Amino acid sequence: MSDINMTIKQAYDLTFSCLRQNGCNEENAAAAAFRLTQAEADMCQAHGLFRLPWYVGGVKSGRVNGSSKPSVKRLAAAVVKVDGDGGFAPLAQQVAHSPLADCARENGIAVLALTNMFHIAAMWPEVEALAEDGLCGIAVTASYPYVAPAGGLRALFGTNPMGFSWPRPDGPPMVFDQASSAIARGEIQIAARDGRQVPFSAGIGPEGQSTTDPEVVLQGAQLGFGGYKGASLAMMVELLAGPLIGEFLSFEAEADDAGLGGPPKGGELMIAIDPARFGDAKEIIAHGETLFQEVLKQEGTRLPGDRRFQSREITRHKGINIPASLYEEIVSLRG
Amino acid sequence: MSDINMTIKQAYDLTFSCLRQNGCNEENAAAAAFRLTQAEADMCQAHGLFRLPWYVGGVKSGRVNGSSKPSVKRLAAAVVKVDGDGGFAPLAQQVAHSPLADCARENGIAVLALTNMFHIAAMWPEVEALAEDGLCGIAVTASYPYVAPAGGLRALFGTNPMGFSWPRPDGPPMVFDQASSAIARGEIQIAARDGRQVPFSAGIGPEGQSTTDPEVVLQGAQLGFGGYKGASLAMMVELLAGPLIGEFLSFEAEADDAGLGGPPKGGELMIAIDPARFGDAKEIIAHGETLFQEVLKQEGTRLPGDRRFQSREITRHKGINIPASLYEEIVSLRG
Repeated sequence: MSDINMTIKQAYDLTFSCLRQNGCNEENAAAAAFRLTQAEADMCQAHGLFRLPWYVGGVKSGRVNGSSKPSVKRLAAAVVKVDGDGGFAPLAQQVAHSPLADCARENGIAVLALTNMFHIAAMWPEVEALAEDGLCGIAVTASYPYVAPAGGLRALFGTNPMGFSWPRPDGPPMVFDQASSAIARGEIQIAARDGRQVPFSAGIGPEGQSTTDPEVVLQGAQLGFGGYKGASLAMMVELLAGPLIGEFLSFEAEADDAGLGGPPKGGELMIAIDPARFGDAKEIIAHGETLFQEVLKQEGTRLPGDRRFQSREITRHKGINIPASLYEEIVSLRG
Repeated sequence: MSDINMTIKQAYDLTFSCLRQNGCNEENAAAAAFRLTQAEADMCQAHGLFRLPWYVGGVKSGRVNGSSKPSVKRLAAAVVKVDGDGGFAPLAQQVAHSPLADCARENGIAVLALTNMFHIAAMWPEVEALAEDGLCGIAVTASYPYVAPAGGLRALFGTNPMGFSWPRPDGPPMVFDQASSAIARGEIQIAARDGRQVPFSAGIGPEGQSTTDPEVVLQGAQLGFGGYKGASLAMMVELLAGPLIGEFLSFEAEADDAGLGGPPKGGELMIAIDPARFGDAKEIIAHGETLFQEVLKQEGTRLPGDRRFQSREITRHKGINIPASLYEEIVSLRG
């Protein structure tokens, strides 16, 4: 299958116009197109344009509010709540950034409850944005029931990623964003699409059997990373991004969807910490650098996120590639 | 080797008197004895009386202040700092509990910087205490350089555990406390003491070689759980429990020790969240229960921490067992 090459700007324009033609207002289309394109720019296709037909399906089915107006509320001195008004996550996340950052600067730490929105995708953009503002960021979100609890055989937890960022004085921050599952859902879906196998650690079949067939894992259950410890993290994420903020647990999100398709509804919890309220921020950040230098002294290492920043440099010059079939699907959806 | 059986009260009295005879004042001896005995009660020997000779060594060498008076300071509206005054962690943790809990109730979320203290051990007691007060707790700490970074071969990160707790309406809270390493340091040390093997995933030898010999792993490097993801978590913990709160990174703690032995000096970061500032706390906690019920519906599952609570019930009636050699060592240290 051949690929189509385009610039980041072209990818953005294509995505934006496709969303505009399918029921999104300008703010929502711009925020979502920015996010999907950003994932392509970072060469993370599982969060990129691959998702666009799914997004369009969500608006078309009437589940997602393409004209959402997210609202901001302070629940307590250090608790910010943003209600996404039933729209896509990117607009709500964009609206939430400054209130969260300001609240963290004011109190030293602040927590954000992001609710009532659809498809929280990769979270590195929002934690990266906090670190660009000199803050340390943490983000967690649940999704659909894909991962078996420790000792169990049936999917219950979402792949439940955790994102983390730490500011660096020169260049981009240290950022990671990793699923509690052994591998990301999107990677299994892409392996299935491309006819590739997945490692045994990725998941089990519907009867609990070992398999490397991504289709069988998609029918069965994914597994947590590192065994029961990944499953514990997945449970923590469920509680923080679900009950605590008044949002769905993963299995409830699936029930809410009721087979309509489109991205899952759910919530995200973010924590921002301001190093400047703990001491001299410059010294604190410089101290973090001594750790990074020790890591990079060892052969074979790199910092989490570095590959993504390198990808971003490459795509800025060379553009991105998407499968021709996906390109045609998007063009046809755009009409 | 035969074991000595004793009641929890007898174990506490033995530990308390041993610490009192070796340079700890009453407050410090009581707090540390309570913690070490609590670990035995939960049948977690790696954090139990096994550590006592090491504690005594710390005071005897003059590194640990056996008469520490921890002080509490509010750095920002939602940031509490407790300086441990160079004593053992348990007293500082005890002093810090109420200021952190009160600050979380006031602001919805609060962060605690625990600094200048020795040997942060298992963290489930402090996160469990927060959940007993109706709060959700998170705790992280670094230690000595034991774990290799992703792709690297030399130990740099601590085993860097993360503890988490969530309140439950009836009975004890949901609590986990797990190392970022594949297995805990104490478990490798106990395997070495008892002549048992460890899994290949536990670590590598000094030249990066695969091994199941715990002695070789202790000379080489432990590995993160689930590969690079555990190593990412270990790095996050280093940054939060080190630079952010003005404390040592793991490799700096080792340099500080300078071969004197005794427990490592370091810091701990805790976050407490008050569900009551997000909505109706009773509803939020009840919502969490629906997740736990779904987990327990599956055969072969249990909640994190449940085994520990069961152990606590058993030892309450049957007492604890420690190796005769350890008992004799403690009695001789007590003099």
